[in-house]
Amino acid sequence: MQFYDIIAKKRDGDALTNEEIEQFVQDAAQGSVPDYQLSALLMAIYLRGMTDGETARLTQALARSGDTVDLSSIPGVKVDKHSTGGVGDKTTLIVAPLVAACDVPVAKMSGRGLGHTGGTIDKLESIPSFQTELEGQAFLRQVREIGLALAGQSGNLAPADKKLYALRDVTATVGSLPLIASSIMSKKLAAGSDAILLDVKTGSGALLPSFEDALALAGQMVAIGRANGKQTSALITGMDTPLGRAIGNSLEVAEAVEVLRGGGPEDLRTVCLALAADMLQLAGKGDPGACLSLAETALSDGRALAKLRAVVAAQNGDVRYIDEPSRFPAAPHKEVLYAEQEGYITRMQAQEIGAASVLLGAGRRRKEDSVDPAAGLLLHKKTGDYVRKGDALATLHCQARAMAAEAADRMRAAVCYSDTKPAPTPLIYARVNKDGTLSYLKET
Amino acid sequence: MQFYDIIAKKRDGDALTNEEIEQFVQDAAQGSVPDYQLSALLMAIYLRGMTDGETARLTQALARSGDTVDLSSIPGVKVDKHSTGGVGDKTTLIVAPLVAACDVPVAKMSGRGLGHTGGTIDKLESIPSFQTELEGQAFLRQVREIGLALAGQSGNLAPADKKLYALRDVTATVGSLPLIASSIMSKKLAAGSDAILLDVKTGSGALLPSFEDALALAGQMVAIGRANGKQTSALITGMDTPLGRAIGNSLEVAEAVEVLRGGGPEDLRTVCLALAADMLQLAGKGDPGACLSLAETALSDGRALAKLRAVVAAQNGDVRYIDEPSRFPAAPHKEVLYAEQEGYITRMQAQEIGAASVLLGAGRRRKEDSVDPAAGLLLHKKTGDYVRKGDALATLHCQARAMAAEAADRMRAAVCYSDTKPAPTPLIYARVNKDGTLSYLKET
Repeated sequence: MQFYDIIAKKRDGDALTNEEIEQFVQDAAQGSVPDYQLSALLMAIYLRGMTDGETARLTQALARSGDTVDLSSIPGVKVDKHSTGGVGDKTTLIVAPLVAACDVPVAKMSGRGLGHTGGTIDKLESIPSFQTELEGQAFLRQVREIGLALAGQSGNLAPADKKLYALRDVTATVGSLPLIASSIMSKKLAAGSDAILLDVKTGSGALLPSFEDALALAGQMVAIGRANGKQTSALITGMDTPLGRAIGNSLEVAEAVEVLRGGGPEDLRTVCLALAADMLQLAGKGDPGACLSLAETALSDGRALAKLRAVVAAQNGDVRYIDEPSRFPAAPHKEVLYAEQEGYITRMQAQEIGAASVLLGAGRRRKEDSVDPAAGLLLHKKTGDYVRKGDALATLHCQARAMAAEAADRMRAAVCYSDTKPAPTPLIYARVNKDGTLSYLKET
Repeated sequence: MQFYDIIAKKRDGDALTNEEIEQFVQDAAQGSVPDYQLSALLMAIYLRGMTDGETARLTQALARSGDTVDLSSIPGVKVDKHSTGGVGDKTTLIVAPLVAACDVPVAKMSGRGLGHTGGTIDKLESIPSFQTELEGQAFLRQVREIGLALAGQSGNLAPADKKLYALRDVTATVGSLPLIASSIMSKKLAAGSDAILLDVKTGSGALLPSFEDALALAGQMVAIGRANGKQTSALITGMDTPLGRAIGNSLEVAEAVEVLRGGGPEDLRTVCLALAADMLQLAGKGDPGACLSLAETALSDGRALAKLRAVVAAQNGDVRYIDEPSRFPAAPHKEVLYAEQEGYITRMQAQEIGAASVLLGAGRRRKEDSVDPAAGLLLHKKTGDYVRKGDALATLHCQARAMAAEAADRMRAAVCYSDTKPAPTPLIYARVNKDGTLSYLKET
């Protein structure tokens, strides 16, 4: 089978066979097909789609293209979590220790931020001397001993996905459901956990803003997990407005610690408890009510915070920053943004606020960029709040005054006001259960 | 405008602006965009299409990407001709001298064969010492003095098209109407004639086998010509069965000379007279009837043959091969193929017969391959003929017996028989007139 014929088949809307998909992925991993043929195939997949069967096979082939993590030496049901990415999404910093504190091992590999969405590894690296590179045996040992490790993705995990993603990124073929689903799930399969909870965001700051697309993506990923013998479910959570009040790396660590201490913003706390409860359920810890109460207890009695502290210590981080988040170095320039009119805030567009945080230095435009751990913004008001002209909306944190101007404009443009109080938008829209059925949820 | 945004726009089915098309073509010509982005855009164009306006602009941009021929120093209406390619299609060898013999200058640049279709340049090069490379001034001088030059395409004619074609060829994006139409017409615009007659083939051996596709392509090309101030019309001619009886380079030159002497196969003669008449009409030589009779006279009184002889002499070819085509060196191995059953021949699939001729050495699988001027095949029977078992169907010409076996199998598989005489298929299906209207024609 020539690669040309695979392109032509997909171009004509036909489903590729297992052999054709295996060959396509092997050729991509080995570099034995030129990029121009791969990108023509990716555009054909974008426009013609893939069946569930094709997507499942693509995921397997991508997962098998490199190293796979063997967690079988660790007792218990290992549960992984993946978020499709958002603004102010520091849930992993809270949920992973919370679940581990309930004796469910979490072997978590995370990524860095790109564009308007942040990444767990950048957040962790704002803790001085924290090591996110864990060699294979050390990673396994830590999960065995503490029940949790938070590491960067190993270099050879799903290399074919890395290759395809790099091409998709420059050929306008990122936003394809089967390509997104297989990309995410291939890394989850290779990472070796027994169960996977997916946090699929919906709203202006999400990878796929529309609820229908988020639902379709969640459904595809749950099906892929099931086809590969992994207990998998998904929560569709809101990302129209940033999650919590902090956006930016050390600012978000500090907010995560607040939640682990029993405080913090209510929306963040609610979403984290829901995610943790669902992970516990996947691990067989009981019915939804029982799992939620397990999570609430581990949060309120300080075990979850203790677990994060233990992980930071194990990964060589300075635990004094967990004990006293006020130690985090402040950004040299802080600037308060004031409301320009009176009324209810009806929108605070997450994507625009994420873009503002990138301008402040908290995120990356391109992969090669570095991030400023202290940069970002703190929201004093959020969607649904009533403000008077001159009330503080947000504080921008950055290295110098000059960086703040464009970010402030972007931030201002992201806010809409009205005389009428807006209807609350859900924090958690729905769950795709592990059998593929859908439950609509009511948490707002 | 980033190239990425152009890809995304076409991916979403939107029409590109003139500026976007200009940039795309310039980037392609200058090599300032990577092939993987170009091929993603080509696949998006393949699947999303282009409006007539986009196609016209793309054609102009491709034509302007390199040299353009200025024929203004040559008096009269210069008429060009292009065939979309077929099997046994030696019409240029007959039609170009025929039109030139009627005092209409023809400045013809042709290509080489690829795959199952032959190319005029390969055919001309079977004439010993014939020069197909004519430097610009020599080309113009010859058209001025003799009224006809038959040259290979200059290296820098529409280089952006060359670049795009090479990518389309390996990314399964050749068969897109706007890409085919703009590719052909860009070279015709750059070649500088005032009027263009298109011979768009339909049937199994054609680039676009279905009549509807051929008609759509013809319509698009005529519209492009009109939008660029060129008198342009198109004939849709049959290519279900090879044209004439000879397939292969020197075999086809010999057959062309037969027609120019007033003999030769009737189908070939009919198509050539129709093409010549339409070219004369584009040059303003009168109504269809008058133009046909001009062409018939130039054929029957020997002026067309004399014109071919003059061109061969001018381009350093050995005219003795025109005077006595039996001088062409015979292929070392000849093998007669016999009918395996009795009945009417209902099909002789042109594509398969073209493929058989490639196996014999008459054509190229890849651009780098060389061709054998003596190789090919002569058909003794054609579609519609009644044969008895053991009648000679065709003679294969090649270098060695071993080459003939696979070609013979291919040739045999291309022939279908029936007890019932098949309805004749048209030689000329329709004309797209220069104003874009359609005339159905009756010549069979």
